[in-house]
Amino acid sequence: MANPTPVKPRLADELDIVIPTIRNLDFLEMWRPYFQPYHLIIVQDGDPSKVIKVPEGFDYELYNRNDINRILGPKASCISFKDSACRCFGYMVSKKKYIFTIDDDCFVAKDPSGKEINALAQHIQNLLTPSTPFFFNTLYDPYREGADFVRGYPFSLREGAPTAISHGLWLNIPDYDAPTQLVKPLERNTRYVDAVLTIPKGTLFPMCGMNLGFNRELIGAAMYFGLMGDGQPIGRYDDMWAGWCCKVICDHLGLGVKTGLPYIWHSKASNPFVNLKKEYKGIFWQEEIIPFFQSATLPKDCTTVQKCYIELSKQVKEKLGPVDPYFIKLSEAMVTWIEAWDELNPPAGSASKPQEVANGAPTKPK
Amino acid sequence: MANPTPVKPRLADELDIVIPTIRNLDFLEMWRPYFQPYHLIIVQDGDPSKVIKVPEGFDYELYNRNDINRILGPKASCISFKDSACRCFGYMVSKKKYIFTIDDDCFVAKDPSGKEINALAQHIQNLLTPSTPFFFNTLYDPYREGADFVRGYPFSLREGAPTAISHGLWLNIPDYDAPTQLVKPLERNTRYVDAVLTIPKGTLFPMCGMNLGFNRELIGAAMYFGLMGDGQPIGRYDDMWAGWCCKVICDHLGLGVKTGLPYIWHSKASNPFVNLKKEYKGIFWQEEIIPFFQSATLPKDCTTVQKCYIELSKQVKEKLGPVDPYFIKLSEAMVTWIEAWDELNPPAGSASKPQEVANGAPTKPK
Repeated sequence: MANPTPVKPRLADELDIVIPTIRNLDFLEMWRPYFQPYHLIIVQDGDPSKVIKVPEGFDYELYNRNDINRILGPKASCISFKDSACRCFGYMVSKKKYIFTIDDDCFVAKDPSGKEINALAQHIQNLLTPSTPFFFNTLYDPYREGADFVRGYPFSLREGAPTAISHGLWLNIPDYDAPTQLVKPLERNTRYVDAVLTIPKGTLFPMCGMNLGFNRELIGAAMYFGLMGDGQPIGRYDDMWAGWCCKVICDHLGLGVKTGLPYIWHSKASNPFVNLKKEYKGIFWQEEIIPFFQSATLPKDCTTVQKCYIELSKQVKEKLGPVDPYFIKLSEAMVTWIEAWDELNPPAGSASKPQEVANGAPTKPK
Repeated sequence: MANPTPVKPRLADELDIVIPTIRNLDFLEMWRPYFQPYHLIIVQDGDPSKVIKVPEGFDYELYNRNDINRILGPKASCISFKDSACRCFGYMVSKKKYIFTIDDDCFVAKDPSGKEINALAQHIQNLLTPSTPFFFNTLYDPYREGADFVRGYPFSLREGAPTAISHGLWLNIPDYDAPTQLVKPLERNTRYVDAVLTIPKGTLFPMCGMNLGFNRELIGAAMYFGLMGDGQPIGRYDDMWAGWCCKVICDHLGLGVKTGLPYIWHSKASNPFVNLKKEYKGIFWQEEIIPFFQSATLPKDCTTVQKCYIELSKQVKEKLGPVDPYFIKLSEAMVTWIEAWDELNPPAGSASKPQEVANGAPTKPK
């Protein structure tokens, strides 16, 4: 079963790179050989009057807060401000099948042989090959060159499941929470684990948005990074929130989530004191959020990501609302997000339907 | 949380090495620096009149079929003959806390730097540090040097769970089933994945008995390798059967199962034609066995491994009996195994109880 699908080295017509930023994008210079064939969607956070410089030769569109407000109108309230959670606006305006999102302090890593890692190519490889969420394969990704399913792996499960998410890792600065940063300020991740694996069905994981690929058609509408930053009681839980929601929905819809390769080089630890301030409510709340997501189930009639997400928003309101009023607001923002998503991404062929229905006069064939 | 427990390099008083074999144990020469401090339990399969040579200097006890029959009497029927499943007799007669079992065609592997891998030391490390079955850590084993729990990992789960099983892997000849062996006769596993990870709660995996460590006190009574080989319709599913039973019980009791490091060097592929004959019913049956184990639940009053295993044997009889009469026989052998286990491993302080009860005259303090 190894390598059933030949992987295209470039997928420029089908993938957008989404980058949230508040500064000039000098980091792109190092990524030039890998990213230049792709279209970039830059989501500028903070002061919209600031000019963000993008190195020459890149094909991009850039949205600042004024653009977001103009495009979404009142629904712009669901997009966070002064937090990298704003990146999910980029997922919404993309028209491509796949998204790769990366932080602007992440650089090209090297594998143990000293060779530069093409992170994007690995994400594409991960997304184009199936996942194995229903049974664990001890030799990791069975679709990889030189690997396969081991003895005892049911043959009926060897076709796997479509892959919705490819979660990449980080060399150098690991993605630790503020307390761990404070306790281990010098810890660096130097271990290159040469594996990609599927996170089994029914298991939650902490999804980091620093180096993340996903299939927008399969899961994009659930890749909402929540309400963080300016005016909110919490930060640094945007990707976690998206990961928990997405995993529950992927499990329900029979989609796969992979983690492992590729690595990027994470250059700089963010300030642990600032992080602690952003995180502390999340550290407390996650003790209730995780059990909530672990026991969340979706009814059978939730057959689309949108339906799943709306249902999940109701459960968030009901079950997490009592934890803090923030979750009521978040559950409402989840609904707004779906409304905005559907407005910008009308189902194929349905673009003019709402108007027709409103007029009560569907167009007849002549 | 990394390395909460300093690992003892040797644990000779607490660990036995169990080796099933039909031949002279020349392979031990390569393992001498690693195994010589330990006691070996050799389970001789096949013709008991054959003399198995063990290299000088090893401390061992050897059991052949005559010994097994003598020690277990009629209950010897639960121990397979002419199949490496016979190894589980060694688990039963050991008095140690930990077991490491290895096949006699497995040699010392080297890590990517060319250094010999001390497989036993890694198993001990795995068994002495906790597992993380309730939430996935994307940087793999958080208790390892240089690693920790990542952002978003609930703090309440960072103590982990006691580790019951350490499943090691194989370089060179991968553990493939006969069909895969036939299709890919030249495939070799050359990928050294530098990771140990916990198989999440609720997820089954194919446990291979080639390179396996476990905590006998925590899970030994469920480490039964079933009825295989001589007189049975199936072979090469001994370790799989044990793995599925153990995983369901570990999940129920809150114990952890790890897989990954250490690697051994698996020298020689077994004959795929012979394997196909042994496996073909298993390949067919596992399509029903896996869903059975995936949906198996144990009642709350199953608080010991023995109680769990007896309950599981009943469910095997009821749910898998209709698949083939073999499973009726197997379910009865599971009960016999537990009876034999308890006979050889009476609960502490209860050794003389049965006799006292039989006499109706408990000893009174004078």
